[in-house]
This record gives sequence, C-alpha cells and structure tokens, in this order.
Amino acid sequence: MTPAPEWITGFVGGEGCFHVGVNHNSGMRCGDQVLPEFTVVQHERDVKALLALRDFFECGVVRTNHAERKAYRVRGLDHLVQRIIPFFERHPLQTSKRQDFELFRSVVLMMKVGLHLRVDGIGAIRAIASRMNRGRSR
Amino acid sequence: MTPAPEWITGFVGGEGCFHVGVNHNSGMRCGDQVLPEFTVVQHERDVKALLALRDFFECGVVRTNHAERKAYRVRGLDHLVQRIIPFFERHPLQTSKRQDFELFRSVVLMMKVGLHLRVDGIGAIRAIASRMNRGRSR
Repeated sequence: MTPAPEWITGFVGGEGCFHVGVNHNSGMRCGDQVLPEFTVVQHERDVKALLALRDFFECGVVRTNHAERKAYRVRGLDHLVQRIIPFFERHPLQTSKRQDFELFRSVVLMMKVGLHLRVDGIGAIRAIASRMNRGRSR
Repeated sequence: MTPAPEWITGFVGGEGCFHVGVNHNSGMRCGDQVLPEFTVVQHERDVKALLALRDFFECGVVRTNHAERKAYRVRGLDHLVQRIIPFFERHPLQTSKRQDFELFRSVVLMMKVGLHLRVDGIGAIRAIASRMNRGRSR
C-alpha cells in the first residue's frame, strides 16, 4: 500500500512512540549519551504496515522487537531532522502524542546544534525527556 | 478536529477493536445472546480523538472504561449496519484488523437476517467469533 499522510497521522497517533533515552556512557564527552528514537511496534502479522512506513519515510529499519513483535525504528539524527520531524510538522498528530512529538523535536534540534555534548545541555535534555510519555502503558 | 477518512482508517487500524460476544442469557429464545461491538479505547487525555470518532460516525457513546481509560463504543445493530460497516467497506483497514472487521461484518449481517435467533445460527456465530482477535494482547 501507499499510505496517505492522514493514515500515517492516525496510525502513529495511536501506535507510535517518540522516545529520548539518556544513558551513561563513559566513552562520551559528557559521560552521557542521548538517543532519540521514533518507533512503531506491531504484531508480526502487521509487519506490512511497518514496511509501508519505512518505504514512505525512506529511512529507518524494521526489526524483530520481542518474540512476535516487530518494530519500525528511526534513530539516525539526519533522518529524524530531514524526514520524520518535517512530516509531523506538516501533518500534526491529533492525540496527546503530539506533545511527546514536540518535546522530541526540541531535543533533536538541541542535538543538531551540539547541546547534548555540554553538561548544561544534557541537564536540559534530561528534564525534557522526563516529561515525555507520561502515564502511558507502553 | 474533523478527521479525514484516512486518519480514521489509520487510527482504528491500530487502536480499534471489532468484537462479538456470545453470552448465555436464559431470557433469549435460544438461550444465547450475541453482542457485537466496535470499540476504541484511549487514555482519558485522548478523549478528544474518541469524541471526534463519535461525531464523525454520528452514533455510539464515549464512556469511562477502566480507571483513566475512555472507550468509544458502538453496539446498536442499525448503527453498525448503516454507519460503521459501510465506512470500513469504502475505506479498508490496512492492518490485520481488516480480517476481524470482515468476520465482524459477517456476524452483523447474519444478525440482520435473524440467524442469531436460531440454534444453528448461534453455532455458526460462535465459530466465527472464536476466530476473531486471535493473538492480540487486548
């Protein structure tokens, strides 16, 4: 299938996840690594919907997540900046995931200018990340 | 918001549920009651998306489901026949929920001609219902 933008907005509004991980990594300049990722997880029977997202966005990968679950995942900063974020700016999510998206976008844009490599930047990113995906069961 | 049909297809393809309950009810002619329902459940923060569905389909109700979960629910046979089913015939779901929808539709159409009031009809409906929502976590 070739999904309509509105289909993507509806599907991702329900099933998508914008997540920012902040992990300790002694190899990094600040000792912390910021990992933004956009994911959509489905039962493997619906892997076609994930492949349609990958083909639509022309980036990211579809991999096994847990057992019979498959995940579409975009982690590359350039792909997030050039493909994922502009799409959801043009076609806003209609659910509370829009707030997660907006926080996610601010972190990605901070990373784009290198703030994640400074201690104060990491502090700000941690604060933003803690406000994301609140009260969700997944 | 006024949702586009493609938004509804995407959102329901992820979050919707087509379910047929078959319950024992000694008040019924065959002793069994068939209860088809179309539901979409969301955290209460996304109740607006459910209200948009209700307004779009011009039927059904939005109620509290469990704790902070809200549900959009359509149970009326005429509403299912006249509004829900024709919509998803015109705008097919792109996920495996399409199979559930097709089984659901066949049960609703069987009910429309009164097969759920005959013992053999109930047997067939039970067989169809048992094939629905397989392998789903909800």
